[in-house]
Amino acid sequence: MRIGFIGLGNMGSGMAANLLAAGHEVTAYNRSPEKAAALVERGATAVTTIADACSGDVVISMLADDPAVESVTFGDGDTAGILTSLPQGAVHVSSSTISVALADRLTAAHAEAGQHFVSAPVFGRPEAAAAAKLFVVAAGDPAVVQDLSPVFDAVGQRTFAIAPGPKTANLVKLSGNFLIASVIESLGEAMALVGKAGVDKQQYLELLTSTLFAAPAYQTYGGLLARREFEPAGFAAHLGLKDVRLLLAAGEQLEVPLPIGSLLRDRFLSLLAGGGRDLDWSALGALAEWEAGGARPAPD
Amino acid sequence: MRIGFIGLGNMGSGMAANLLAAGHEVTAYNRSPEKAAALVERGATAVTTIADACSGDVVISMLADDPAVESVTFGDGDTAGILTSLPQGAVHVSSSTISVALADRLTAAHAEAGQHFVSAPVFGRPEAAAAAKLFVVAAGDPAVVQDLSPVFDAVGQRTFAIAPGPKTANLVKLSGNFLIASVIESLGEAMALVGKAGVDKQQYLELLTSTLFAAPAYQTYGGLLARREFEPAGFAAHLGLKDVRLLLAAGEQLEVPLPIGSLLRDRFLSLLAGGGRDLDWSALGALAEWEAGGARPAPD
Amino acid sequence: MRIGFIGLGNMGSGMAANLLAAGHEVTAYNRSPEKAAALVERGATAVTTIADACSGDVVISMLADDPAVESVTFGDGDTAGILTSLPQGAVHVSSSTISVALADRLTAAHAEAGQHFVSAPVFGRPEAAAAAKLFVVAAGDPAVVQDLSPVFDAVGQRTFAIAPGPKTANLVKLSGNFLIASVIESLGEAMALVGKAGVDKQQYLELLTSTLFAAPAYQTYGGLLARREFEPAGFAAHLGLKDVRLLLAAGEQLEVPLPIGSLLRDRFLSLLAGGGRDLDWSALGALAEWEAGGARPAPD
Amino acid sequence: MRIGFIGLGNMGSGMAANLLAAGHEVTAYNRSPEKAAALVERGATAVTTIADACSGDVVISMLADDPAVESVTFGDGDTAGILTSLPQGAVHVSSSTISVALADRLTAAHAEAGQHFVSAPVFGRPEAAAAAKLFVVAAGDPAVVQDLSPVFDAVGQRTFAIAPGPKTANLVKLSGNFLIASVIESLGEAMALVGKAGVDKQQYLELLTSTLFAAPAYQTYGGLLARREFEPAGFAAHLGLKDVRLLLAAGEQLEVPLPIGSLLRDRFLSLLAGGGRDLDWSALGALAEWEAGGARPAPD
Repeated sequence: MRIGFIGLGNMGSGMAANLLAAGHEVTAYNRSPEKAAALVERGATAVTTIADACSGDVVISMLADDPAVESVTFGDGDTAGILTSLPQGAVHVSSSTISVALADRLTAAHAEAGQHFVSAPVFGRPEAAAAAKLFVVAAGDPAVVQDLSPVFDAVGQRTFAIAPGPKTANLVKLSGNFLIASVIESLGEAMALVGKAGVDKQQYLELLTSTLFAAPAYQTYGGLLARREFEPAGFAAHLGLKDVRLLLAAGEQLEVPLPIGSLLRDRFLSLLAGGGRDLDWSALGALAEWEAGGARPAPD
Repeated sequence: MRIGFIGLGNMGSGMAANLLAAGHEVTAYNRSPEKAAALVERGATAVTTIADACSGDVVISMLADDPAVESVTFGDGDTAGILTSLPQGAVHVSSSTISVALADRLTAAHAEAGQHFVSAPVFGRPEAAAAAKLFVVAAGDPAVVQDLSPVFDAVGQRTFAIAPGPKTANLVKLSGNFLIASVIESLGEAMALVGKAGVDKQQYLELLTSTLFAAPAYQTYGGLLARREFEPAGFAAHLGLKDVRLLLAAGEQLEVPLPIGSLLRDRFLSLLAGGGRDLDWSALGALAEWEAGGARPAPD
Repeated sequence: MRIGFIGLGNMGSGMAANLLAAGHEVTAYNRSPEKAAALVERGATAVTTIADACSGDVVISMLADDPAVESVTFGDGDTAGILTSLPQGAVHVSSSTISVALADRLTAAHAEAGQHFVSAPVFGRPEAAAAAKLFVVAAGDPAVVQDLSPVFDAVGQRTFAIAPGPKTANLVKLSGNFLIASVIESLGEAMALVGKAGVDKQQYLELLTSTLFAAPAYQTYGGLLARREFEPAGFAAHLGLKDVRLLLAAGEQLEVPLPIGSLLRDRFLSLLAGGGRDLDWSALGALAEWEAGGARPAPD
Repeated sequence: MRIGFIGLGNMGSGMAANLLAAGHEVTAYNRSPEKAAALVERGATAVTTIADACSGDVVISMLADDPAVESVTFGDGDTAGILTSLPQGAVHVSSSTISVALADRLTAAHAEAGQHFVSAPVFGRPEAAAAAKLFVVAAGDPAVVQDLSPVFDAVGQRTFAIAPGPKTANLVKLSGNFLIASVIESLGEAMALVGKAGVDKQQYLELLTSTLFAAPAYQTYGGLLARREFEPAGFAAHLGLKDVRLLLAAGEQLEVPLPIGSLLRDRFLSLLAGGGRDLDWSALGALAEWEAGGARPAPD
């Protein structure tokens, strides 16, 4: 397929490379153009405007937050956005982790413009993006989602098509990040406790992940936590805060109290207030030890 | 080996049966003697006093809580307990989930009496106990723990020998139950949120457990939660509360704040106050939905 | 002074009446014009456009939330707002409980238009507004705040002039509402506890308010709580939620974790999810009893 | 009346002095006998055994915690306690802040011994004890409580006689300390927020205590907090933790979740883990600022 790709950060560059590897024709756009160079070597066409990335069947956006997606979609001052550039009948696939409210707004705007909108956020860290091992959660018009299979197959190991409203995929993605952050916090509390009693954290983690907690979330984040390996960030703390904020906003709109969500929000703020903005979000789990008299997680 | 077994509840009866199946000679004691009948059919000798269960190399106790273990060990009024019945050099293996403080007291008392004390709590529900699939966390004198391998191998799929002080095993066990309860609570919040947005909970759980959360804790408790299947209890809510209480007490002694632990304590109290004392502890996860306007988890 | 007054709800109608009583000339505007009738009897001039309320020295707005203040200030479609109607050199006094972010935006917009902006939120319930017993927290250009003394004296019993940036007054107001809600929640927990032990709540409250807690916040909200008198609402639960939301947003911007604030947010959501949207916000304090097995606070 | 007084700490020495000043005959006992010297100068008789303090109509105990009260009442090894020393018909007045469970045990033990037991915990700091300005909460046999009026009047400004079971007074006392600690925490959060925005904390406190929060609890603890004046301790942090622990235990027994209570417990543990064991408990309120990037409350 002819695919435009907007946003070549940690995640997007790996996804775009895998689209090329699967034989798709990729036109790549990034605000800082130097990031496109590596992709051009693999066969991509680099473009310098959003409009130029919108000439194919599909444009995929993979950006950091709501404002970035809004700016790219609706344009910014004199710069044309996806909405005015994409042909009728083409699809905007949003893989960014954005708010439920923005997903709703994008759905309506693209429908009005005669275009399709599909939310397809992904689970996985940059290593998984590079290895085409992401999990894709896709929601939108079932026929359109079906047609996008070659795209999703190129970037992920499995696609979950859920109920038609695109925003549902965003809610599920936010809830998944919430569950990961809950693992980080609960592991952090448990390690602070057994660690202060003299138990070796690595051995403890091996015990956990050999038994009831034999899951990637525990292995990955537990390892980072046991080794206090918070730099470089696979996913930065301030992005973790953003996701909790969006989760709580969705909870507020649906009138669902989320006490662990609230705790995580406070934890992220504490992490940022102590200088941890750009640490990996697993550093959140080290706050329990800090509150128990240990060292504060902070940049080197 | 010649093994006495005290406590034939949901967990103990399965463990004792597997000891018999592995060829050990088992003398079984239970406060309510009718529970021993099934074991006698498999070759056990039923006895009516604790003293009679203490004539072998090892006596294993598997009971509900601290008071039960105290009563069985130290005796009760005119009834002799393990401490005065067990031969010098023999071992008391405590598999109950008890407090760190009691583990310390038992360690000292048995040492003074010239006996050994090993803490060997287990991870796994009654089904796992019946299938010899438990995970055993053992702590005590390394040589003694080593000698007990045939016992642990008979009841579990793997044994983790950790640092020598017996109480460490109890702390690790409590922290493990804390992590499970954290999974129940965080899944409960996530399901309350996506459920209110119309996502099917079973499909949601399948997505989670196919990806980052492919672990028994998520599969087991997520399934019970999605189906609201809280009876009969594999592990009753009031026992869950007891374990959180012991965890918080250990945290207090070590000066470790445990905010998720505190939340779980409040949740369990709410569950009990609503009549859920004997429901499976996974019912705790349904409180999030209740607070969001749904039905209270309650006995049929 | 010649004063325009915009917003004649529970609070605004009392304030406007007191301005009239103090001899000021009042031009009153309300979206639903029938609310102006009682004021006209007392000497006010009713107008039907925002522009007509902006012909004096001062225009005071007293509205429910950010969107209402935005609409009134910046106009809405074809309707002129305060910003384009107010003469140069005149003052917009905002007494609404709004976000810190909006206060900043209003400060900049009025400055650009050659007008003054003063934030002057008030503490007190409708009875206090009617009795001219409010406490006014005023922030803005010190000379302008000084000139407004006759206005503030007419509506309140005391004015606190704080640091010059208007948004500081809004932050202080939000923090005050947070402290009140904290009183409601902590009293609610204490009453749930002693009440379940058989202590009479009214007697308990008398003890508290005769001693360490002899303050209006405890008397007012404790009384409503002890009598479960949640209708009619002096201040509705959904407005309480709004204020906590704005508080948490301010905390996020300043990187200050607020754990009681987070708890209050979850409590308000639970109250709303149970149908309590229009109950008095003191109903939040009854959730503790509900969670302890008592009745849910709900409309009659 | 002829009164024995056991426990001459910060609180007890002031209370005993006021009993002397009111004309009572006081026999004083303290574990460290040197503390009795100042009282002897005012006319007390110092004794060196608990039994010698039990020869009058009433013995008052004012001690730090459950173990101290247990030891003094039930005796310790060869040392006779109040229970075996007090004449039949005499009264043990316990003014210590103890657990509800211990109050129940004392009630039963004294009844069996033909003695009376009255719980009479007090509200007020050492300054109030010295000035006879305490508030006394008394519960027990109404006739006995009535007879004790001259005692209570000598030490306090007002006595609240509540429902007959002595333990109720202890529950009310614990709930009062909980409400004070809630004030400390909520003020701490509010001050962390407005302080980070540049508002002067003393001015902020003056605003609060002139309006809705014109109560001793806000004035006293808010002042200590605004000045960060945590030494010397009027009431030490580790005693604050003890009281929260007893509150939560009472809540658990009654099945009442107490989320602010749980937060306070975690806060106290964090304060102790950072070396704050002997700071005034108002230091708990400084943790919010610490988590927002400020300094940790710690001993000089």
